[in-house]
Amino acid sequence: MNDWLDLLGAGPDKPAGRRALARLITHIENDTAEGSSALAALYPYTGRAYRIGVTGAGGAGKSTLVTALTCALRARGQTVGIIAVDPTSPFSGGALLGDRVRMHKLAGDPGVFIRSMASRGARGGLARATADVALAMDAAGFDILIIETVGAGQSEVEIARTAHTAVVVEAPGMGDAVQALKAGLLEIADVLVVNKADRPGVRATVNALQTMFESMPHPPPGAPPVWFPPVIETVATKDDGIEALLDAIDAHCVYLNESNKRAEHERARVEADIMRRLRDGLLGAALDCIGAAGWEAAVAQVAARQTDPQTAAGALIAALGLGEAKAR
Amino acid sequence: MNDWLDLLGAGPDKPAGRRALARLITHIENDTAEGSSALAALYPYTGRAYRIGVTGAGGAGKSTLVTALTCALRARGQTVGIIAVDPTSPFSGGALLGDRVRMHKLAGDPGVFIRSMASRGARGGLARATADVALAMDAAGFDILIIETVGAGQSEVEIARTAHTAVVVEAPGMGDAVQALKAGLLEIADVLVVNKADRPGVRATVNALQTMFESMPHPPPGAPPVWFPPVIETVATKDDGIEALLDAIDAHCVYLNESNKRAEHERARVEADIMRRLRDGLLGAALDCIGAAGWEAAVAQVAARQTDPQTAAGALIAALGLGEAKAR
Repeated sequence: MNDWLDLLGAGPDKPAGRRALARLITHIENDTAEGSSALAALYPYTGRAYRIGVTGAGGAGKSTLVTALTCALRARGQTVGIIAVDPTSPFSGGALLGDRVRMHKLAGDPGVFIRSMASRGARGGLARATADVALAMDAAGFDILIIETVGAGQSEVEIARTAHTAVVVEAPGMGDAVQALKAGLLEIADVLVVNKADRPGVRATVNALQTMFESMPHPPPGAPPVWFPPVIETVATKDDGIEALLDAIDAHCVYLNESNKRAEHERARVEADIMRRLRDGLLGAALDCIGAAGWEAAVAQVAARQTDPQTAAGALIAALGLGEAKAR
Repeated sequence: MNDWLDLLGAGPDKPAGRRALARLITHIENDTAEGSSALAALYPYTGRAYRIGVTGAGGAGKSTLVTALTCALRARGQTVGIIAVDPTSPFSGGALLGDRVRMHKLAGDPGVFIRSMASRGARGGLARATADVALAMDAAGFDILIIETVGAGQSEVEIARTAHTAVVVEAPGMGDAVQALKAGLLEIADVLVVNKADRPGVRATVNALQTMFESMPHPPPGAPPVWFPPVIETVATKDDGIEALLDAIDAHCVYLNESNKRAEHERARVEADIMRRLRDGLLGAALDCIGAAGWEAAVAQVAARQTDPQTAAGALIAALGLGEAKAR
C-alpha cells in the first residue's frame, strides 16, 4: 500500500508519483484486487480535479484540440491528466498516418499525464475502467482531467456525462448536416466548439448551432439562471480560439459552483458509479453461484428453443433467492 | 395473446401481420409484461431470418446503401425488416437536411418493415430492445433483417456482432486515414464496402484495406477454410456495386453454413442474450430488495467520502445473500 501513498505524497509531476500512478492504472486495467484496495484507500483524497469532457465525431480534430487546450492550461500553471477513450485518437495509438506528430508538444512535460483506454476488448468494463483511472489521476493531484471520447456510442456518451464541463466538437463540412445535432450530442453539450473554423462551411455550421440554442426556452424573471452553451470557433492546429474556449470552460465552472449544480453533478456521478459496480458485481456473484453446469444447461435449452432467453434468465435469478436469507 | 399468433399467421406483408408487429415492437420498447410474454411465446418460431449488420462512421452513406440493398433484395423476392440503431440515419429520424428523400423508394412496399431505435434515453436497454425487435421481425417471417448501426460505440459494435454477416462501410476522404481501421471495426467485418466510390481518394482507401486483408495469416494446407473479407466498391446513390455486395453476402452465408460457423454464431448470440437479461434482471431484483432508503444511505456515504463506491456496492451485494437461501 505504500506505493499508493507515495502517489499522493510525491505529487503528480514528480517521477515517484508518476511511476506509482502508472502502476496503479495498470492494476485498474487488469481489474486486480490490489487496484480495488488502492482505489478504496485513495477515495477520500479524490474530488478535487475538474473534469473536462471532449467529445464529437471522428475527424472533428478532437485530439489536436485536446493538445492545444492542454498547452494553454499548462501556460496557466495547471497540471493536466488526459484520458483518451476515443479509438480514433492518436493518444490511443489509433493514428495510422502520422497525426501523432501534432501531440509532440506534450511529450516530456512532467505536468501532463496521458493514458489511453482501449475500447476493443474492454467488453463492458470501459466505463468502469475510465471512471477508476479518473479517480486515480484525481487522487494523484492533477488539477484538470481531460477525457476524450468519440461521441457516437452509448457508453461513450455516458462517460462524457461524468465530466463537469462537456465540450462537444464539430467541424464544418463533415457530412451533409451538423453531426452533433444528429447524434444527440447537443443534449450533453455545455460548450460547443466549431473546430477547423478556417474551412468552408463554417458560417452555416455556427449559424445552425446558434439558432438551436437561441430557440431554447428562456427562464422566467426571478427563476434561477440557466446555462446557454456558447459556440466557440477554433482552429486548433493554429491555436486560434483556444483562450476563448478556456474562458468559456471557466465561465461554466463558475456557473456550476454558484448554482449548486456542482454538488448535484457529483451526486449523479456517485449514483451512476455505485449502480455500475452493483450491476457488474451482482453478475459476477450470480455466475459463481450458478456455476458452469447450470449456465451450460440454460444456454442449451434456449439454443434448442425449448425456452426463451427471458424465461431462462428469470429462472436463474429466481434460483438465487435474492434477499431471502435476510428475510427469514 | 391472439394478436401475436396473428402476427405469425398473417405473414409479414399482410396488413394484419404488420399491425400486430408494430404493436409488439411498441410493447418491446416500453418493456411491458405483455411484450415479454409475447416474445416468450414467439421464441420457438424465431431463428429463420438472416441478419445483415451495416455499420460504419457517420457520413459513409450507410442509409443510402441500406436502401439500395433492400431494393435489390426485394427484386430477388425476399422480404426485409430494417432496424436503424444509428442516430444519424434518416430511418431514425436523424436526417435534418432531406436525405430522407433517398429512402422514398421503400415507402409503401408491404415486403419492407422499417423500425428505428432511439439511442438517447434507452439508457443501457438499447442492445436488449434491438435484440428483441429483431426476434419479433424474425418471428413475423421476414427473410432478411438489416441492422444499421453507427460503428463507433461499444454497445453499437456489440449489436453489430449479433449479425450473421457484418458489413462495414467506409467512404474515401472522410478523414486523414481509414476510419474503420482506426475504430477497430475491421475486426468484426465480414464484408467491406467502400461506398461513394466515384469520389477522389477511392483507390488509396481500397488499396489500404486490401493490403490489410492480404497480410492476414493464411491457413495451412488441409486446415478448415478461413473467410477473407472481400472489399466491394459501391456508389449507393446510383445502385452501382449493389449486386456485387449481395453476392458477397451470399458467399459469406454459404461459408457460415458449410463451416458450421452459423451454429457457433447462434450459440454465441444466445449466450450474450441470456447474459444481458441476467445482468439487467439481477440489478432490478437487487434494487427492489435494497429499497429506496438503503440505496439513499449508500449514496450519501460515498458522496461524503466515508466509503468508496466499490466497498459500498460490495456491501449491498453481500447483504443480498445470493444463493444462501438455497445453500441451507
